[in-house]
Amino acid sequence: MDSITVVKIGGKVLNQPSMLEVFLDQFHQLTGPKLLVHGGGVLATALAQRMGVDVQMIDGRRITDEQMRDIVVMMYGGLVNKTVVAQLQAKGCSSIGLTGADANTIVSTKRPPVNGLDYGWVGDPREVGHAFLHTLLVANHVPVIAPLTHDGKGNLLNTNADTMARYLASSLVSYGSVSLLYAFELQGVLRDINQPTSLIKSLDQSGYDEARSNQWISEGMIPKLDNAFEAKKAGVQEVSLVRYDQLVSLQQGDFDEYTRLQ
Amino acid sequence: MDSITVVKIGGKVLNQPSMLEVFLDQFHQLTGPKLLVHGGGVLATALAQRMGVDVQMIDGRRITDEQMRDIVVMMYGGLVNKTVVAQLQAKGCSSIGLTGADANTIVSTKRPPVNGLDYGWVGDPREVGHAFLHTLLVANHVPVIAPLTHDGKGNLLNTNADTMARYLASSLVSYGSVSLLYAFELQGVLRDINQPTSLIKSLDQSGYDEARSNQWISEGMIPKLDNAFEAKKAGVQEVSLVRYDQLVSLQQGDFDEYTRLQ
Repeated sequence: MDSITVVKIGGKVLNQPSMLEVFLDQFHQLTGPKLLVHGGGVLATALAQRMGVDVQMIDGRRITDEQMRDIVVMMYGGLVNKTVVAQLQAKGCSSIGLTGADANTIVSTKRPPVNGLDYGWVGDPREVGHAFLHTLLVANHVPVIAPLTHDGKGNLLNTNADTMARYLASSLVSYGSVSLLYAFELQGVLRDINQPTSLIKSLDQSGYDEARSNQWISEGMIPKLDNAFEAKKAGVQEVSLVRYDQLVSLQQGDFDEYTRLQ
Repeated sequence: MDSITVVKIGGKVLNQPSMLEVFLDQFHQLTGPKLLVHGGGVLATALAQRMGVDVQMIDGRRITDEQMRDIVVMMYGGLVNKTVVAQLQAKGCSSIGLTGADANTIVSTKRPPVNGLDYGWVGDPREVGHAFLHTLLVANHVPVIAPLTHDGKGNLLNTNADTMARYLASSLVSYGSVSLLYAFELQGVLRDINQPTSLIKSLDQSGYDEARSNQWISEGMIPKLDNAFEAKKAGVQEVSLVRYDQLVSLQQGDFDEYTRLQ
């Protein structure tokens, strides 16, 4: 099989129909087997506010009580996932929306309280059902995966989309070469978020360690980059951070305005 | 392939966790390839009310404006579908949740206004992607299908679950014998809804025509029975209406407390 491309797209792009349209066009044009993982946190927060449900975030992580779980299941597994699937179908891209519960795609462990803090219905992936995903890819279907998993005991769990993309990409290396692209509204890792010319085109573990110790890297980037480096260590051939509208240029190789992990 | 069983389960059972649990246990125990179609209207109405969105029903059919469409996509495609999938997985039943948009399972036509009445984002099925469903069934996966379709142009459409079950069952006859079971909170078609002994165990088209002209059949049953007779005409071998907790008895054949279409 040709190299598999796993793309993660974040909530800010999903939240803007015009940006989403551009992104999906780019995603559709990628050649070879591919798989999309999406977030949706911004939209889940908006729905919670509309329903009068408290949103509790601690260090960028969502506390997921019973009501918030229903909200993320509705938003991620329902509205965001199915909207993306319907739009891809309209482009002639035969996609199929999944959560980790569907066909046991990702089984998680409910996170135990951390230093007394209970995250609620949050799951940390422990097993990827890659055989089913591989069957879909071979048949030219494009899995579109919502950031939800299950514990195998009947409970759905809210799961970080960056982490899911890492686990999915890492488990697919058993079928050949895999590229993992974290797509978002920025060009990649920037030394100065307001300065596009400060793009770091190549980042290795020691450069990342330096960035963290000197604290020039924004806090929101840390979980994404942690996942990105874990994927690299797990054998994912290419791991990059790229702007949502530049996937095709990146794949064609005549372009270097993104961050590539070494 | 063994006979395929298509089961439709209605909103009243989905709305009661204890009834849903019993139903899913029964469904899990059915032998042979099987497929579940669910509703969720009661829950969608409750969510709309909570969000302050007007619910408009005309002759039991939901007017689906933009806001209501988001609600049914969240509820049917998200919360109901994924809850059922996670619970089936916990029983060891490898299920996979789908809407009509996923893998083009059901393509619909947006309903044009009827006598000046615009139903909004409502779809009438026109094409079933049965090859993909058949592939899943052969691989022992159980499709769990939400009452949503798409028009192939990027739009999701609210679609009647009884109608979807009829189309799905009818299209699967190309692979062999198919049973279609409409499961709900009653034993079947009753002459007197308060009198279980008034169960009609066998109903043919002329009996149904008589029931309609004498108006002893409840209005809510008419769309279900219309779909049931259409399925029968399309070659579905067995079409029955049965209580949600009696699927296994029906399949085992030592039981006749349900309505079977002739």
